[in-house]
Amino acid sequence: MWENNLTSLLKIKYPIIQAPMAGGPTTSSLVAAVSNAGGLGMIGAGYMTPIQLRQQIRELRLLTDKPFGVNLFVPTRYNVEWEKLQRIKEFLQPIKERFLVEDTSILPTFEQDYSNYLAQLTIVIEEKVPICSFTFGIPSAHEIARLKEHSTILIGTATTVQEAVHHENSGMDAVVVQGSEAGGHRGTFKGNENQNLIGLMSLIPQVTDYINVPVIAAGGIMDGRGIMAAKCLGALGVQMGTAFLVCEESGANNLHKEAILQASEEQVVLTKAFSGKLARGLKNQFTEQLEPYEDNLPAYPLQNELTKGIRKASAVDGTTEYMSLWAGQSPRLAKKLTVHDLMNKIIMEAERLRLNH
Amino acid sequence: MWENNLTSLLKIKYPIIQAPMAGGPTTSSLVAAVSNAGGLGMIGAGYMTPIQLRQQIRELRLLTDKPFGVNLFVPTRYNVEWEKLQRIKEFLQPIKERFLVEDTSILPTFEQDYSNYLAQLTIVIEEKVPICSFTFGIPSAHEIARLKEHSTILIGTATTVQEAVHHENSGMDAVVVQGSEAGGHRGTFKGNENQNLIGLMSLIPQVTDYINVPVIAAGGIMDGRGIMAAKCLGALGVQMGTAFLVCEESGANNLHKEAILQASEEQVVLTKAFSGKLARGLKNQFTEQLEPYEDNLPAYPLQNELTKGIRKASAVDGTTEYMSLWAGQSPRLAKKLTVHDLMNKIIMEAERLRLNH
Repeated sequence: MWENNLTSLLKIKYPIIQAPMAGGPTTSSLVAAVSNAGGLGMIGAGYMTPIQLRQQIRELRLLTDKPFGVNLFVPTRYNVEWEKLQRIKEFLQPIKERFLVEDTSILPTFEQDYSNYLAQLTIVIEEKVPICSFTFGIPSAHEIARLKEHSTILIGTATTVQEAVHHENSGMDAVVVQGSEAGGHRGTFKGNENQNLIGLMSLIPQVTDYINVPVIAAGGIMDGRGIMAAKCLGALGVQMGTAFLVCEESGANNLHKEAILQASEEQVVLTKAFSGKLARGLKNQFTEQLEPYEDNLPAYPLQNELTKGIRKASAVDGTTEYMSLWAGQSPRLAKKLTVHDLMNKIIMEAERLRLNH
Repeated sequence: MWENNLTSLLKIKYPIIQAPMAGGPTTSSLVAAVSNAGGLGMIGAGYMTPIQLRQQIRELRLLTDKPFGVNLFVPTRYNVEWEKLQRIKEFLQPIKERFLVEDTSILPTFEQDYSNYLAQLTIVIEEKVPICSFTFGIPSAHEIARLKEHSTILIGTATTVQEAVHHENSGMDAVVVQGSEAGGHRGTFKGNENQNLIGLMSLIPQVTDYINVPVIAAGGIMDGRGIMAAKCLGALGVQMGTAFLVCEESGANNLHKEAILQASEEQVVLTKAFSGKLARGLKNQFTEQLEPYEDNLPAYPLQNELTKGIRKASAVDGTTEYMSLWAGQSPRLAKKLTVHDLMNKIIMEAERLRLNH
């Protein structure tokens, strides 16, 4: 029941991909455990330096000989609006003082981000990473050609039919469709991120009617029920974030894991407060305090840089109120398990469902 | 494969419920066609007078001897804010002049709405309607007891786990869970309607883990793929609006049907512009012009009354730009068919999917 075009493309046993959660959760131990259990582990490399990425790939290879992937953020140009920057810096100042966070005066530039991304691409090629996925955009035709020359399998991220078609036309081998249920950053790169919030029940069949490459469903899927539902809708596989984030091997902060395990679906909100880009996570004091500023924040990744120190200090201080608590809309389905036990549970649930129909 | 606790509760062949779209679409010909095809037709009686409701029930009985249902809006108290009313009246004035709509000076009151609702309940009982569903709230314990004395089967509408639990505890026999994908008004009655936008992939399994009465999934479901997905997630049936709205028997305006048949999922937005209550439909000039006022509109049903004349006149004038074009997030899946052909198509698709798994 598990073999399909996606599992043969990725050379995996089960069409279950661990979402490439950037910023800590995707430890080598998590990624390796997923790949060793027959799924696809992914390194969330978005915020990594090329050196960090190379180190993790090499570390991972000591833990698994199964396929795994790397996810990169495609940098996009943005405007630096000094007035917005100044206003939000002033707003953040008392929070920084409370947590004794030093002021960040050095902001990233597009050129730095772009050269970091190019260096990451080189590492992916040099280290012969079999699979590379992309968020926030599509690599250039030149970059795609270079990766394909080295037989890298490419996966794009789409939030609408239009974006999915764009990925297929650009040569992506598969497309992750990110439903409105998904935790973390919205992958929208065409149109309005506030409007491109399509639930998976609508998004999967509309996309699979329009493209021919395998579709991977992401958003709110945590167990065998979700996988079987995604398959009924036309997806060949799923990408799960929150379900793996709470696993024992995940590098997410324990406060983050516990907050999800105790949350209800009503606490999961959309916010730009942490990064300037729309993302889904648990509401806390920080998201509520920044609510009035939602439409007037500095662009991603500027806001991300401005709040970095606060988020870290909040975690060190033992409070979740100023941490980014990324989560999808199904926190009630989260279970604190090892990857091995979670994978077994999901596969058994899915196989039982198939027999009952 | 189709028999379950929901089909036996409702005495229907297929667990497919036609959503009770108030305001025109649910003609007797539509409702009867759905019931005659083995699903459950529903009269959307929210805006009807008791006399209109009695007439339609009697008309319907001439067209079908199968079970059908009536849906009522549970009235809720609201504040009349004169400043908001005045501001929006002034804003609407030029649009009214353009369409030669006379000014509505008589506004509804809660007391009128509530006595209309009580009279509707009496009709449901007197006419021995087998099934009654509710939106926007839960009937009082007294009303529920009265309906149950007459063996009416009761169905509530929930947008969160909390609301679903409340329905079960109140004695509802089944619960419709309305995903964020759903077209028309949000059924939220606890918490924030702007936040209770949970996709079905997340909502169905979280609700079915918490309640024991049958769960009916609503939102973006248009074909056999959606039904099988909803069943995998734990729902026993589905409620479909947009899919039936575009059917030949539906009383929706042809401009509305055509607009859906030509729309993409990105054109489907959330708006309070037409009624003061959050609802999903196609964006047009009216939703865009009222966007800046979204958070400062008179409460439902006041705004609904204020825009009624404009919506009608827009349709008469042959333009969709000022009509409420309710639609779920899957317009690309809409097909202009008879109910008979749509039902056959869905059932065949679902049975084919079951065999392939």
